[in-house]
Amino acid sequence: MGESYGRFKIGNDEAIFPFISSSNIACGFHGGDPLHIEHTVNLAITNRVRIGAHPGYPDLAGFGRRYMQIQSNELRAIVKYQVAALKGIAESMGGTLAYVKPHGALYNRVADDMDAAQAVIQAIKEIDPKLYLMGLAGSPIQQLAKEKGIPFIAEAFADRKYEKNGRLRSRSLPNAVITDPFEAAEQVINILLHKKIKSHDGHALPLEAQSFCIHGDNPKALDILKAIHEALKENDIEWQKNI
Amino acid sequence: MGESYGRFKIGNDEAIFPFISSSNIACGFHGGDPLHIEHTVNLAITNRVRIGAHPGYPDLAGFGRRYMQIQSNELRAIVKYQVAALKGIAESMGGTLAYVKPHGALYNRVADDMDAAQAVIQAIKEIDPKLYLMGLAGSPIQQLAKEKGIPFIAEAFADRKYEKNGRLRSRSLPNAVITDPFEAAEQVINILLHKKIKSHDGHALPLEAQSFCIHGDNPKALDILKAIHEALKENDIEWQKNI
Amino acid sequence: MGESYGRFKIGNDEAIFPFISSSNIACGFHGGDPLHIEHTVNLAITNRVRIGAHPGYPDLAGFGRRYMQIQSNELRAIVKYQVAALKGIAESMGGTLAYVKPHGALYNRVADDMDAAQAVIQAIKEIDPKLYLMGLAGSPIQQLAKEKGIPFIAEAFADRKYEKNGRLRSRSLPNAVITDPFEAAEQVINILLHKKIKSHDGHALPLEAQSFCIHGDNPKALDILKAIHEALKENDIEWQKNI
Amino acid sequence: MGESYGRFKIGNDEAIFPFISSSNIACGFHGGDPLHIEHTVNLAITNRVRIGAHPGYPDLAGFGRRYMQIQSNELRAIVKYQVAALKGIAESMGGTLAYVKPHGALYNRVADDMDAAQAVIQAIKEIDPKLYLMGLAGSPIQQLAKEKGIPFIAEAFADRKYEKNGRLRSRSLPNAVITDPFEAAEQVINILLHKKIKSHDGHALPLEAQSFCIHGDNPKALDILKAIHEALKENDIEWQKNI
Repeated sequence: MGESYGRFKIGNDEAIFPFISSSNIACGFHGGDPLHIEHTVNLAITNRVRIGAHPGYPDLAGFGRRYMQIQSNELRAIVKYQVAALKGIAESMGGTLAYVKPHGALYNRVADDMDAAQAVIQAIKEIDPKLYLMGLAGSPIQQLAKEKGIPFIAEAFADRKYEKNGRLRSRSLPNAVITDPFEAAEQVINILLHKKIKSHDGHALPLEAQSFCIHGDNPKALDILKAIHEALKENDIEWQKNI
Repeated sequence: MGESYGRFKIGNDEAIFPFISSSNIACGFHGGDPLHIEHTVNLAITNRVRIGAHPGYPDLAGFGRRYMQIQSNELRAIVKYQVAALKGIAESMGGTLAYVKPHGALYNRVADDMDAAQAVIQAIKEIDPKLYLMGLAGSPIQQLAKEKGIPFIAEAFADRKYEKNGRLRSRSLPNAVITDPFEAAEQVINILLHKKIKSHDGHALPLEAQSFCIHGDNPKALDILKAIHEALKENDIEWQKNI
Repeated sequence: MGESYGRFKIGNDEAIFPFISSSNIACGFHGGDPLHIEHTVNLAITNRVRIGAHPGYPDLAGFGRRYMQIQSNELRAIVKYQVAALKGIAESMGGTLAYVKPHGALYNRVADDMDAAQAVIQAIKEIDPKLYLMGLAGSPIQQLAKEKGIPFIAEAFADRKYEKNGRLRSRSLPNAVITDPFEAAEQVINILLHKKIKSHDGHALPLEAQSFCIHGDNPKALDILKAIHEALKENDIEWQKNI
Repeated sequence: MGESYGRFKIGNDEAIFPFISSSNIACGFHGGDPLHIEHTVNLAITNRVRIGAHPGYPDLAGFGRRYMQIQSNELRAIVKYQVAALKGIAESMGGTLAYVKPHGALYNRVADDMDAAQAVIQAIKEIDPKLYLMGLAGSPIQQLAKEKGIPFIAEAFADRKYEKNGRLRSRSLPNAVITDPFEAAEQVINILLHKKIKSHDGHALPLEAQSFCIHGDNPKALDILKAIHEALKENDIEWQKNI
């Protein structure tokens, strides 16, 4: 959320907020400018949605979705700067920063690159060790966070396909993004009820998750959210705002 | 301070810190990247120097030194973002943010443009109303800060020439920057002892100030600082670290 | 046209190209990245639409729509860089750069600020003095271009309101942008048939123009274009592709 | 050369130009702004030094020295944009663009990544197939350029250490940059006389080169150049300006 940049608009944040309980808010490096960030924090507060910092690579042109070979210490500093900015803005408006979720290519990198994961964890500890880290369910960063004493939120994706190794299928490959609302909802329900997911090529994988991601720039985001809510109701799974 | 950007180095911060008691630290918009900012905050803490946020226009190419027609509300958000980032970084390292001093063309704008001044004051209030605002001694923002309940530090410049209206002579004009250490020291002593300054064209102006600015990117910054310390000693004016 | 930036999309270029005869293509400073620029140049060539360079202020966050106090010589260099890039790209694809039209706040500045106008004219002369300059019909730059020997295209706006002094009403004021297709078409026909325009507050102004602008980021751009074509037909005014 | 950016200065271009015959000039993405680029092109023309375009990753904060996972087609467009800008500027000043040399991490990538190498070669062909490509002597891009009909300048480095596989030792490792002028000169002479180089860990490697690189941001650049000229003279190797 909050990824618009000046006159460049991305996403449909106002419509989406009523249907979510946590929001990953851009911090200005891959997207988001101070006014849009503030506006989005305000939407989160108004909709009683948890505020997460969504720090990314300093790559507006690439929307933070391509790997950059940034060394660990600089990565730590980049994440810390972004989290500090978002935390200060949230608190200035009466909100609370609840967690940090790295964005895009950085998210995928820290799932498996333990140097980079440690850099992000260190950044969080320096800002506030009570902040949660949100990361890819079942990936090594989950274990590292535990070891380092940072609470972890294991996340699965409603609108992304998985490889059979449990990683997200790259956006540079076909069949990486789910835009069919029913397929996305089915993936969520499958994880909730059966702790399982089907990879893009049909393999069954075990997967436990506490949070589900829908991308704000997915053109079907709102339809996917509605389909998920519908499916939750049909399966008698209670959904509620957390704050 | 802290205005270097990646491989692009500006200033001579390590050498300068022992000679100052307050440091205006760039926040990433006109200069400064997360690693350099953090390094500079660390220098401030180590040298027991007060930490000030130095937010600027989002104009790296112009180093924040040219006017940008940014509307008040966006200005407020831009300043808030930068102050939040610096405050969070300072606190993460055991330091404290003491004050906010707008940078460059923004500094000059808020001295007289009360809409913009109000935007900066509002940004400070939203982050922390106990933060001081540092601004041009004798300019209207001094009065506005008082009215709005924000403590104000009146600042004079050691290394800049003044117009006879008490404003800084524009860098786009000749004879705007003082690089002669003795002239800079004399200007400081003149203000301290006589509450007066001489404009670039010889007019005497009244001026009371609580803080004196030397620019980190002035090639003579270190020599100027040494000349000021020498002159303070000769005039039996005590100088001490404030924290 | 071509103002999208990475994942940040602006405008509806594919749909619009069939209805226009000249296209102002962003050059990367206020909007536009190399891939989008190239794609747009290709659309221009395919649709037999004249290619114009649309250089702007280096201000992506502000979309080039706010004044920046850039000195003349730097302005000249900034415009030259952008025009050179667009010309080279156009020629690499078999196209031809036909003209230069400054963008946004720079367009408005050069209409009346003759130092800035001269900087743009000089940039054009240095690149290729046979390039046309497109600027605000009836403003002083029209005369200056003539004096300096640069061919000029006088432009009026279909989708913008005018002040009674013949300048565009600022976007920061209400009633600055026309989104009603019929009103836009009427304004065009009025200029074509009667060499007149009505200011936002009802004053009649003389106005002669050779080109009419519709903004690519106007959400009604396509409807406005269709309404203009309809009105041209109704008034038996012939419209044709120029190349 | 020409890598300074606004107030952020890098290198010592004026002093260096008399000692070189080819100059790789930044194009604005990893460094260089329009005014500095133009100034540097002027220095090249005045000093009768060949003008090369030095396009880099769009990463000012990283100075183009860190890998970015940009796909081939975008890479092609990015290089084309930068080369077009520099070519246009050079020609506007009466100069001629002679060659293209990718910068930093992009240079190292195209030495071995044939998709990326092909993207750069394609960009050159689209702009002007008579332009030379300058690349790492002995690396696969040399062969690819030949196959694709682009003339190639094989380059060795005076101020960088090599790995035993003939690639440059990464700047992220110790002992990657040569700052001792005599060592740099010895490396050059060794290649010229014996077509050999010694890797950082003492292995002898065959190496034939037609051009030798000294980095403008190497603090010893001028001393290295003087040492090389001295060594050329001692070894009766003639050096002359090429244009």
